[in-house]
Amino acid sequence: MHEKYMSLALEEAKRGMKHTHTNPLVGAILVKDQQIIGRGAHLLYGHEHAEKNAIITCQTPEKILNSTLYVTLEPCNHQGKQPACTQAILEAKIARVVVAQLDPNPLVSGKGIAFLEENGVEVISGVLTSEAEKLNPAYNLFHKKQRPYVTLKQAVSLDGKLGLDNQRTSLTGPEVYEFVRRERDNYQAILVGAQTAITDNPRLLGSETSLFPPQRIVLDRRGRVFDKPDLTLFKDESAPVIIFSAATPDNLPKHVTILKPKDFSISTILSDIADFGIQSLYVEGGAEIHDQFLEASLWDELITYQAPILLGGNSKAAFSSQRQVLSKVILKDISIQQIGQDIRISARRDESCLLD
Amino acid sequence: MHEKYMSLALEEAKRGMKHTHTNPLVGAILVKDQQIIGRGAHLLYGHEHAEKNAIITCQTPEKILNSTLYVTLEPCNHQGKQPACTQAILEAKIARVVVAQLDPNPLVSGKGIAFLEENGVEVISGVLTSEAEKLNPAYNLFHKKQRPYVTLKQAVSLDGKLGLDNQRTSLTGPEVYEFVRRERDNYQAILVGAQTAITDNPRLLGSETSLFPPQRIVLDRRGRVFDKPDLTLFKDESAPVIIFSAATPDNLPKHVTILKPKDFSISTILSDIADFGIQSLYVEGGAEIHDQFLEASLWDELITYQAPILLGGNSKAAFSSQRQVLSKVILKDISIQQIGQDIRISARRDESCLLD
Repeated sequence: MHEKYMSLALEEAKRGMKHTHTNPLVGAILVKDQQIIGRGAHLLYGHEHAEKNAIITCQTPEKILNSTLYVTLEPCNHQGKQPACTQAILEAKIARVVVAQLDPNPLVSGKGIAFLEENGVEVISGVLTSEAEKLNPAYNLFHKKQRPYVTLKQAVSLDGKLGLDNQRTSLTGPEVYEFVRRERDNYQAILVGAQTAITDNPRLLGSETSLFPPQRIVLDRRGRVFDKPDLTLFKDESAPVIIFSAATPDNLPKHVTILKPKDFSISTILSDIADFGIQSLYVEGGAEIHDQFLEASLWDELITYQAPILLGGNSKAAFSSQRQVLSKVILKDISIQQIGQDIRISARRDESCLLD
Repeated sequence: MHEKYMSLALEEAKRGMKHTHTNPLVGAILVKDQQIIGRGAHLLYGHEHAEKNAIITCQTPEKILNSTLYVTLEPCNHQGKQPACTQAILEAKIARVVVAQLDPNPLVSGKGIAFLEENGVEVISGVLTSEAEKLNPAYNLFHKKQRPYVTLKQAVSLDGKLGLDNQRTSLTGPEVYEFVRRERDNYQAILVGAQTAITDNPRLLGSETSLFPPQRIVLDRRGRVFDKPDLTLFKDESAPVIIFSAATPDNLPKHVTILKPKDFSISTILSDIADFGIQSLYVEGGAEIHDQFLEASLWDELITYQAPILLGGNSKAAFSSQRQVLSKVILKDISIQQIGQDIRISARRDESCLLD
């Protein structure tokens, strides 16, 4: 029975998709005498949390007394942009709270539940925990590891090539182009290397399906992009641009920020990106950039768009560098989808096969 | 109505799959007064053709007079291992023959139909022609172009790599291993380069699902395999081995034949292979061999097995060589299938995008 109501809370949570920004998706269901009397989700960053929405949108407030609240994430115990949810639960005189996932932040994890129990609310936890964790892979990872969730995205030919030598080569079709723009909106930042920024001259924008569009990040130690002031990234102001570089050029457009990290290792770069509060990163290449993430073992998901095209010969291969590779990396949770004439394959890193 | 009976004849034809060897799949349906009175397929190389089987297995032979025969391929007009089908049709006093596809051999195409018409049989042709042609892609191409139908088969990681440097790297799982062995049985020969023969030391055998197992071909101009007499290809006699080489070693096992082509271009090699009567070729690599077929534009289908694995770095990429590539090759008829943990993608060459 707990699973049934928690499943509904999980469904409810998805209503906030793309709009909760750095907050997690959370859903809540209020139940009294086996009847659903309220439901709520965290719908928008900075606005009411799911628990509060379930309470205030309840059409029969007289029934809330002694009801049971199902919530996909441990209620918060601190005042943020919104008052603490634990307070709201006490004030509403809810008798029992069923929780799927504890707060992933080790500093506060379990504190919401402890506070509720100390104040006489019965708490049941651990219901559909892994399903709830899947709602917020980036949020959970960010708080556990203090780095963004990293997705490596590549577009390749059927023989695993990226394009003709150092020229922009369109491989996938218009359906993938649209799909990728929407997919970008699921991330808080997009990252490319200097070569990709120069060769492809991309806009790196989402599809305006999110209120919090991704920021654009370029890794460019030597500052090669600064010799190309006509790049779209400099001309187009629709989203902020952060350039990690040792160069210090003048007269940059206002939307462009330069950061000089203490070194250019992926570990340092990700740590600096986390300091911006960026929880998820969509890495679009090129080959050496992808390979650096792979070598550092700092990535979580791989999305491959494969075009029904062959290149062969000396064309540049995906995920390549001079690095000598001694072992293979095994992935899991494979998902395959045809998009127009192309194929989308997503897979996750198998933690059990990797050192981190 | 013609389409309905021809569809049934196409279904019938498939009963010969894997067993007609260099003969085509052919199906036939005998119809009298809108009733099916007989059906037949060419079931086994050297045995009765479909038309004859439809006639001799008919349970009501008295009804054959003035009946209509639906046949997926133009009836043969010459005595081979079996008497001419056109004679059998005349003798059975069949009144009308409906044909899907003309004989692809330009030397005899249309002659069967002409003979039937000269002898008072009504002939309708062009019914479900393209469906019938798809039954026998290799047979049709072999007779039109005098070269085998070439499938390039590769097994790659998600980043399009073949394996770690010059060592056998297993990428795909056991399900693909079994699937490939069965798939090989659809071809009359398997081809690999010397490096693959040496590094992988494969058996290159089918799965014994065909009465006519594939022959094994190695391209090895310099004769490097002859320094490795312990290779499985030399030890295992279960199928003939043909080695294209300029070397002339002694004391080869009986199942091994050496051929010295006039040159080692793919065009010459394919022409020599066609002289053996081999109509279909499954090319298993390595990278340079595949690339040579691609460069020569002499190939018809690509089958990719993709493992949920990353290699990255300096790992060898698929379809690679020193050749400079200036344009992309576009494929069509994409088909995707999950096999175990791996993905199978097949696609055909788009003739309209290629010079040949």
